[in-house]
Amino acid sequence: MNVLMGVGKAGLKSEGKPDVLVVLLPQICNASFLFTSNHFKAGSVIYSQQVFEKSRTVRAFVVNSGNANCGVGKEGIMHAEQMAKRVAQHLDIEEGQVLVFSTGIIGKPLPIDNLLKAIDDACSLLEPLDLKRASEVISTTDRFPKYDFVKMGSLEVYGFAKGAGMIHPNMSTMLAFLFTNAQIDSYTLSYLHRQVAERTFNSISVDGCTSTNDSFGIISLGVIKEDLEKVREAIYEVSLSLAKKMVEDGEGATKIIKVVVKNASLELKAKTIAEKIATSNLVKTAIFGRDPNWGRILASAGSTAFPIDQFRLKLYIGNHLVYDGKAHPKANEKAKAYMEENREVEIVLDLMEGKESWTYYTCDLSYDYVRINAEYSS
Amino acid sequence: MNVLMGVGKAGLKSEGKPDVLVVLLPQICNASFLFTSNHFKAGSVIYSQQVFEKSRTVRAFVVNSGNANCGVGKEGIMHAEQMAKRVAQHLDIEEGQVLVFSTGIIGKPLPIDNLLKAIDDACSLLEPLDLKRASEVISTTDRFPKYDFVKMGSLEVYGFAKGAGMIHPNMSTMLAFLFTNAQIDSYTLSYLHRQVAERTFNSISVDGCTSTNDSFGIISLGVIKEDLEKVREAIYEVSLSLAKKMVEDGEGATKIIKVVVKNASLELKAKTIAEKIATSNLVKTAIFGRDPNWGRILASAGSTAFPIDQFRLKLYIGNHLVYDGKAHPKANEKAKAYMEENREVEIVLDLMEGKESWTYYTCDLSYDYVRINAEYSS
Repeated sequence: MNVLMGVGKAGLKSEGKPDVLVVLLPQICNASFLFTSNHFKAGSVIYSQQVFEKSRTVRAFVVNSGNANCGVGKEGIMHAEQMAKRVAQHLDIEEGQVLVFSTGIIGKPLPIDNLLKAIDDACSLLEPLDLKRASEVISTTDRFPKYDFVKMGSLEVYGFAKGAGMIHPNMSTMLAFLFTNAQIDSYTLSYLHRQVAERTFNSISVDGCTSTNDSFGIISLGVIKEDLEKVREAIYEVSLSLAKKMVEDGEGATKIIKVVVKNASLELKAKTIAEKIATSNLVKTAIFGRDPNWGRILASAGSTAFPIDQFRLKLYIGNHLVYDGKAHPKANEKAKAYMEENREVEIVLDLMEGKESWTYYTCDLSYDYVRINAEYSS
Repeated sequence: MNVLMGVGKAGLKSEGKPDVLVVLLPQICNASFLFTSNHFKAGSVIYSQQVFEKSRTVRAFVVNSGNANCGVGKEGIMHAEQMAKRVAQHLDIEEGQVLVFSTGIIGKPLPIDNLLKAIDDACSLLEPLDLKRASEVISTTDRFPKYDFVKMGSLEVYGFAKGAGMIHPNMSTMLAFLFTNAQIDSYTLSYLHRQVAERTFNSISVDGCTSTNDSFGIISLGVIKEDLEKVREAIYEVSLSLAKKMVEDGEGATKIIKVVVKNASLELKAKTIAEKIATSNLVKTAIFGRDPNWGRILASAGSTAFPIDQFRLKLYIGNHLVYDGKAHPKANEKAKAYMEENREVEIVLDLMEGKESWTYYTCDLSYDYVRINAEYSS
């Protein structure tokens, strides 16, 4: 029941590192895939979405990093198809059971001949899936590989991912692939998947930008029967762990920021306000400056369509109550020390009006974010 | 028919510069005021909004800079009322005809006694309105005063404003006051005002953050009768001029970016996509790096709820066609040179599907933006 992988080099990364990953599942598997909501989609996304929606199952997939296969006209869709075909031929499986993912620079045509040769190499030497190595092969600007594993009794969920910039809900320049040995039908898996994605990959942001290539898949290897709630929990744990690693690896990040909006009247309100705070450049630069600037946090919270009651709500930074209708200068000093000492900074906004809550993760906005994104050349 | 002004010092600016401005109109005037949509509103905004909505006319207003009168509990509303009362007493006018505006740091109670004394001083020496001086008094972190004047035959429209970008760290944002000698009823003025604001002050962004204190007023002095279309045009011209000055003065800005989305099927679609491009950190850092990174522009354009056809649209930087279903490396080189040479960079996205267009102004995202906003201490 092994998941196998193979690695190849198409010369897409300047350092000549491996940039093509082929993953072969032990049989045709039920799966669920979520793709970017961006209308400027990569050819690989357009292709895989079409193919996957026909069967909602998958036997193998191929990922190239270093080139997004995006903004290159309809050729991009053809290239994705050629890649799938080559994998299918090599592994003697159905072409319609092979998905294709790409990540990297936008606007450069794939050097398709090199790609196909790299796929040949990858397919001819398959070995058991190594999560760390798989993450490394699909990485682009990532500073560390992203993978995790949860075991609850006989239930296993594991996965690998990449992503450091262009991270925003509805995914981003991120790819994540999860596997579970639990047996789940595609319909149920899709339902669990959306639930989990909303609270994990769709609740992180590095720069508020949604990318062209994001894809997040969960594959059921179908070995054991397991309680669905337990499966959901395990999938959630691995997904949250991978999502948080992306934030931690956010371009230029020096702090992880956890924004909790609680006791809201509506879940959507809690989420909308949490997202607004987490994507505010003013909040993010304040935290880079270790400044417990509650004015900016509340100005962000107030700028959605949902009303907030400024005379009733409470705002905490860490455990320090910095605002409850008025400022608390001493708590502010303690909050400043807390921000200096901790890598993860928690902001809790208690709306004092209901029972719904939402948590959003982001990182601070530093000089390095500007440097990385201003120096990067298209 | 002179508009008069008086100036006072309440010690709200560290340099001891004038920080209180009183403006007296020759009589009760029809007017239109737009206030911030933020739910975390300053006490002055809450007060002025209530007062103004009763009569939709105004006789005088007072502005203090250096303190936003925001995040200080209900005391903020009381303080605004006290300020209005003092102006009314001094000038022997109705209290309900006096509006109050504040801009500056959030979360510090107004030193109300100093404020009232400064109002006394301002009211006791009134002189004709000096646009430049008025802008200087209400400025906070602005690097230059913002005012303009249009004369079309006998029609006059003039105004002054403050704003170093949409928002400064706790230096909440923009105030703009326009005057016209044309006679317009409040209802018509309000209609014109919203139309103009949508295409001017509501189509600029420095950092995508909405402030707690924004206010934009137009006052009809009622001297001449004039064609409404001409009045609208003159108001639009002065408003756009002031709005662009704010972007030019945007924190850390090295470039003004003009984003035009044209030939869209819907006006709302054109606006939504223009705004999305103009508020993308990735686009803004690319322009700071003088990089004609059309991939980031199109990824932003694709990330709204409105579909775009990536195989049909055309993207220009300056006059250079950089994308029309595929890349044009030579045009990209010319676009890079264009970006290096010009202070204002124009991005034109032609959706090739309809007749609606929208223009949005923003500035680039530089190290200095991060420095200014990280070093500022609340």
